Amino acid sequence: MAGGTDEPVSSGGGTPAVVLVEPQLAENIGMVARAMLNCGLDDLRLVRPRADWPNEKAVAAASGADRVLEKARLYPSTAAATADLNLLFATTARTRAMTKWTLTPRAAASEIRRATAAGIGVGLLFGKEARGLGNDDVALSQAIIAIPLNPTFSSLNLAMAVLIVGYEWRMAANAVEAAADATPLAAVPGAVLQLPKETAPATAEQLQGLFEQLESELDRCGFLRITEKRPIMVRNLRNLFGRAGLSAQEVRTLRGIISCLVAGPRRPRGGSGSA
Amino acid sequence: MAGGTDEPVSSGGGTPAVVLVEPQLAENIGMVARAMLNCGLDDLRLVRPRADWPNEKAVAAASGADRVLEKARLYPSTAAATADLNLLFATTARTRAMTKWTLTPRAAASEIRRATAAGIGVGLLFGKEARGLGNDDVALSQAIIAIPLNPTFSSLNLAMAVLIVGYEWRMAANAVEAAADATPLAAVPGAVLQLPKETAPATAEQLQGLFEQLESELDRCGFLRITEKRPIMVRNLRNLFGRAGLSAQEVRTLRGIISCLVAGPRRPRGGSGSA
Repeated sequence: MAGGTDEPVSSGGGTPAVVLVEPQLAENIGMVARAMLNCGLDDLRLVRPRADWPNEKAVAAASGADRVLEKARLYPSTAAATADLNLLFATTARTRAMTKWTLTPRAAASEIRRATAAGIGVGLLFGKEARGLGNDDVALSQAIIAIPLNPTFSSLNLAMAVLIVGYEWRMAANAVEAAADATPLAAVPGAVLQLPKETAPATAEQLQGLFEQLESELDRCGFLRITEKRPIMVRNLRNLFGRAGLSAQEVRTLRGIISCLVAGPRRPRGGSGSA
Repeated sequence: MAGGTDEPVSSGGGTPAVVLVEPQLAENIGMVARAMLNCGLDDLRLVRPRADWPNEKAVAAASGADRVLEKARLYPSTAAATADLNLLFATTARTRAMTKWTLTPRAAASEIRRATAAGIGVGLLFGKEARGLGNDDVALSQAIIAIPLNPTFSSLNLAMAVLIVGYEWRMAANAVEAAADATPLAAVPGAVLQLPKETAPATAEQLQGLFEQLESELDRCGFLRITEKRPIMVRNLRNLFGRAGLSAQEVRTLRGIISCLVAGPRRPRGGSGSA
């Protein structure tokens, strides 16, 4: 086995980033760092941690995984933490009332391997200890990773959730290696999130730009005028487009479509002709 | 899904026992109990725990998995704790200088399922936090479960080790169930499009209606004006929306959005203070 999985590298080099959204306890962040390094992951991103940072309790709980904590970066929002990433998975133990691709950690691990091998930046989102991810963060993600545990007792420690996803990610490499040894020409099943080679996946920042343009135009034309429904409508729309796994080109196309629809016919019947 | 995996039963009924040999910290015992119940396991056996027993710190760390702790039994030796069991696995992160059958947690999970189905009592042995199992306990076991983690950082929290073995045990059952009741909508193994109960997926006819409206408006505003590019642009757009697995409601929403964007602001700027 080459250094790839044993010597963690930055997400640019192909490992998924672990994004903790509003973690409550420093100890849990430390345990997450330890679980990550157990699996060969080291790109840790913290969104508004409640504890001070850096934090001695986190270091103690990391049991030697200090370098993951030292590299960890803080962000003011999930959007900022994932701006450079292309494919986001929301990890959850409970079912959401959203239409989403939902994968087991095992199925997701293959997708993550395939994505990072193609240069696609992957982020794994984990919510706060007590409540998990908020629906807005789930809506930002292209798919859900649902950990299939005991439905009568699914309250999972944060670092445990990270460990299971990381463990499956690590095992997926072992499986690929084993398969490569035995049957190098074995067909890899197709993937819904797979993009053609010449296509660059959209970054979260590009998606954000699309969402902002769309929502601003929908505000203007009155589609989002019912104030109390606006948040859920916005979330549903983001969810819908997020699910499609858009490429950067597709984001540009959709932005062009919105501008074009708003501008109206190129040769207006009687009034001001823009564009 | 029958009660088998969701309602933990005693090892006599088919679940493996978790045997902690000389655990050092009560908190870790509590976390083990929680991880066990996450996986549907509840037969916990403690060999010479260092902390007093029962223990409030263990209860706090168990986060609700009290019934596993209440059922837990204490033993003076590994031999006593495993006397009624038939097949013992020693879990370890480091290689031992012994000739032993060594399995991954995944391979072991199948063996455990096979054994318990045949009425064979299975025990999973875990050593103390700092050093793992002693060689005598490993020697008592029929086989080793070696957890394949980052060889440069394999120090695994005790409860994490229990979780990985328990998770694989659970997944070994899920594999059979998943094949039976999942309706994969994609070529991704294990990926299922999760639809909220009240949500009906769009029909092809509804999608077609959306496409026709969009394309007709894009013709009007000039977005599809380059004749030779029109077919590929139309195909790409249909592909993009098709990929999202739209619900009937989402199709209606998108059609409303197109109409709204085309119609423009509901009231001229001067009239309302909004926007």
